[in-house]
Amino acid sequence: MEFELSKTKKGFVYLVGAGPGNPDYLTIKGLRAIESADVILYDALLEVTFLDLFPKKAKSIYVGKRCGKHSYSQADINQLILNSAKENNIVVRLKGGDPFIFGRGGEETNFLFENKIPFEIIPGVSSFLAASTLANIPITHRGISDQVLLLNGHSNIEECKWNLYANFTGTIIIFMGTKTIQQFANKLLQYGMDPNMPVGLIENASFQNQTVTTNTLKAVASSGMKKVTEGPGIIFIGRVVTYANCIQNE
Amino acid sequence: MEFELSKTKKGFVYLVGAGPGNPDYLTIKGLRAIESADVILYDALLEVTFLDLFPKKAKSIYVGKRCGKHSYSQADINQLILNSAKENNIVVRLKGGDPFIFGRGGEETNFLFENKIPFEIIPGVSSFLAASTLANIPITHRGISDQVLLLNGHSNIEECKWNLYANFTGTIIIFMGTKTIQQFANKLLQYGMDPNMPVGLIENASFQNQTVTTNTLKAVASSGMKKVTEGPGIIFIGRVVTYANCIQNE
Repeated sequence: MEFELSKTKKGFVYLVGAGPGNPDYLTIKGLRAIESADVILYDALLEVTFLDLFPKKAKSIYVGKRCGKHSYSQADINQLILNSAKENNIVVRLKGGDPFIFGRGGEETNFLFENKIPFEIIPGVSSFLAASTLANIPITHRGISDQVLLLNGHSNIEECKWNLYANFTGTIIIFMGTKTIQQFANKLLQYGMDPNMPVGLIENASFQNQTVTTNTLKAVASSGMKKVTEGPGIIFIGRVVTYANCIQNE
Repeated sequence: MEFELSKTKKGFVYLVGAGPGNPDYLTIKGLRAIESADVILYDALLEVTFLDLFPKKAKSIYVGKRCGKHSYSQADINQLILNSAKENNIVVRLKGGDPFIFGRGGEETNFLFENKIPFEIIPGVSSFLAASTLANIPITHRGISDQVLLLNGHSNIEECKWNLYANFTGTIIIFMGTKTIQQFANKLLQYGMDPNMPVGLIENASFQNQTVTTNTLKAVASSGMKKVTEGPGIIFIGRVVTYANCIQNE
């Protein structure tokens, strides 16, 4: 079977979800878009082998940020995409995970819409999906979790609805939360969540150095959750986390 | 660049997230697993061209269910996977979307774990990610939505925490909710959600006949949300739905 891009033409922008960073989890269409690109703007959080997918003819521009250090502002990135498209290139804007989950994809597509640049968005495997499957933590699970709450660890802690979160009966997943997890855990305890609720931290989901750490809510509230690596982490809170060690893949 | 499966061997099970149904959105690793398979057990919700990916040598077994009609029970499916693995096959259990989001993947992996069958889970593009990107509804969006609630439309309406849902400030996404959306909308209104809150219904996400319908919460509460097709639908509730029509891909 052949996979082809139907719309590839000069001046077109693909907003591509790269998935969790390991190229194995890129979509087939995402790969085809990258292969067709003249210009690729990419973020941090890609495994180094991912860059081998970029065609030699393509100009690749690193526009990522890590730990609050921005090499390009969002306005810079928007302008780069626009200029590249106006110069009649096929442009790939490659974003970690999925463009529309904590990825600022909406800002880029709105900008393209306002500037009348044709675009297509290619969804990706969001990092929380890779973290859950690769750590064997089912996000929903019969009789245990039937709903999911995705939170941003950078949220203003005073504005969070702790009563809602602490009484949530499903799985809570926190993005970008490794620095604030102790504060979050304290608030959840204070508002009545079970002190023995399991908490899981998955670092570097899908990378060679992926790690899985688990503890109880009360332990995390008391001592935080020490990171094992320098890489990005995603946090799961809920009874499903007890399945994290049920892996036998050898 | 070559993509290879490192663990392929007889008696091994891959639990593969097929993505939303269009093979374009399958992951590269998912494709490689399918290509290596001796036995493939697959669900409904795949586009017909997806079946062209199955290798000719593979025995493929349809175990899907639609509208409550089960061709195989979950216990039957578990047993089929187990028997196929014990007969020294490479087994692919192909599941719509992602295996761990409303996909009962946890039940299958627990069963494999208990039966000491080696397995690997390959995450997929969950249908809500495809629906959001392909309809141009950002799930999170700066200044508008910073958190996400994933709900099951089959939940017992009396046990839902309507006070929490109605006051949720992010994006609510309802899986399998096309039959209950009018009831849900009435409850949300009753508990104080803005009557003008936009609601979006995406049917057949990623398929040729994908449709996007939008309306206000009060209209949905009063008249329901008529489906345009017979296919599966996913529902978005939140201010981000107002972006649904900002698409210019031609």
